[in-house]
Amino acid sequence: MVDDRQDMPGGEGGPAVILVEPQLGENIGTAARAMANFGLTDLRLVTPRDGWPNERARAAASGADHVIDGVTVFDDLAAAIGDLSFVYATSARSRDMPKDVVGPGVAAERLRQRHGSGEATGILFGRERWGLTNEEIALADEIVTFPVNPDFASLNIAQAVLLMSYEWMSAGLDGALPTRFGLTRRDDPPASKADLIGLMEHLESALDEAGYFKPDHKRTALKHNLRAILQRAGFAEPEVKVLRGVVASLERRHERKGRND
Amino acid sequence: MVDDRQDMPGGEGGPAVILVEPQLGENIGTAARAMANFGLTDLRLVTPRDGWPNERARAAASGADHVIDGVTVFDDLAAAIGDLSFVYATSARSRDMPKDVVGPGVAAERLRQRHGSGEATGILFGRERWGLTNEEIALADEIVTFPVNPDFASLNIAQAVLLMSYEWMSAGLDGALPTRFGLTRRDDPPASKADLIGLMEHLESALDEAGYFKPDHKRTALKHNLRAILQRAGFAEPEVKVLRGVVASLERRHERKGRND
Repeated sequence: MVDDRQDMPGGEGGPAVILVEPQLGENIGTAARAMANFGLTDLRLVTPRDGWPNERARAAASGADHVIDGVTVFDDLAAAIGDLSFVYATSARSRDMPKDVVGPGVAAERLRQRHGSGEATGILFGRERWGLTNEEIALADEIVTFPVNPDFASLNIAQAVLLMSYEWMSAGLDGALPTRFGLTRRDDPPASKADLIGLMEHLESALDEAGYFKPDHKRTALKHNLRAILQRAGFAEPEVKVLRGVVASLERRHERKGRND
Repeated sequence: MVDDRQDMPGGEGGPAVILVEPQLGENIGTAARAMANFGLTDLRLVTPRDGWPNERARAAASGADHVIDGVTVFDDLAAAIGDLSFVYATSARSRDMPKDVVGPGVAAERLRQRHGSGEATGILFGRERWGLTNEEIALADEIVTFPVNPDFASLNIAQAVLLMSYEWMSAGLDGALPTRFGLTRRDDPPASKADLIGLMEHLESALDEAGYFKPDHKRTALKHNLRAILQRAGFAEPEVKVLRGVVASLERRHERKGRND
């Protein structure tokens, strides 16, 4: 899928831009225009308020028709990022989450590196009014935030998309990419988000039955923490398979017990 | 004049933004908003088509009232830049002019340098439809151009102002984010090998009871593979604690089951 998109007029593929529940067609269109300016083409929408297609979006895109025509719409965020293996969440606020928080320049370099080694990547942008939920951010690998003036922090989605698209383009012009992040520690392909979310949900369901998420008021925090740990581990695809087997085995444990007793 | 503005809410002064014959109030307002986000406050207009003040500009500024209130209007470009000593012209097209042409990042660094040594600086942005005339560009010291996709180059004024304002802010940070956001890396201490091995052994014993390491001749290979996965994940100390809890919970699962059945 990503390979197809490398042949699109916008250029060389690059990260998917995922807008979560965008309200205004104008913002979708302006985001598409910003992307096209910097060679990005893969725009994904999670339940846009006014449905899709949206004529206001097309008008605001000012001719970035190849981006508008290529838009894909999803019912939930997990589906929208299912085929990606490394995702940034944009956030204006500092979140109390155990994830790396970087600026747009560093984020773009890291995206370039991963893109260069064949990973499918993406950047999440939240709702106009209140951004992304903590649960949505928990699905991302790292957080990117913008170095805005603390006394007047008011970037809209389209502006945030513009800055990330611009940094993506800029990072590609620097010639050799810095090696200081040293990402690929092995040759296995990284797990897709769909696989990783599958592991999370499997483990959560097993833990649920085991009463791990008690008391109830701690449930969400415990879940986020666990997801963050699994996220950060940066598992490869075959590793996730093994871990699914581990969880399944521990799930079945009581059945064997029962049988043997 | 520039010194006064250093005390304004927007921050530290910085280059003036000069819009030459802007047509749409929305663009003026969006430019003001972009400036405010990155600490710029000195917005100058050369013969705006719809006069000044402009309510559409104020509305589009989304609260950047200090920038809108501080706008100064001029009859011609020469007057607008009269008090400045170093000026960039933005241009989408490459111009056949004997001037340095640089990207936004380099431009921002040069502006910072001059600003730091007390120079009053500015950045010119042209008309929506056709930019700046060669005569206007001749008044500038250097040209800044944006690294846009040649197949789709369609930045509007407000987007260009946003990128330059962003680069101005970034150049002042040397890669760091403003302190209110903090560059929070994961600073948990890495797990000790003892902790990690404790986790491995705990998981292995649970899996052993579950019959995971069957058939026997695969036992060693399965174990090594699992250990390698846990090793590579590079867990931090508190993460290992959480994972111990996860394993313990799944171990106790059958007991709860038994108790409840």
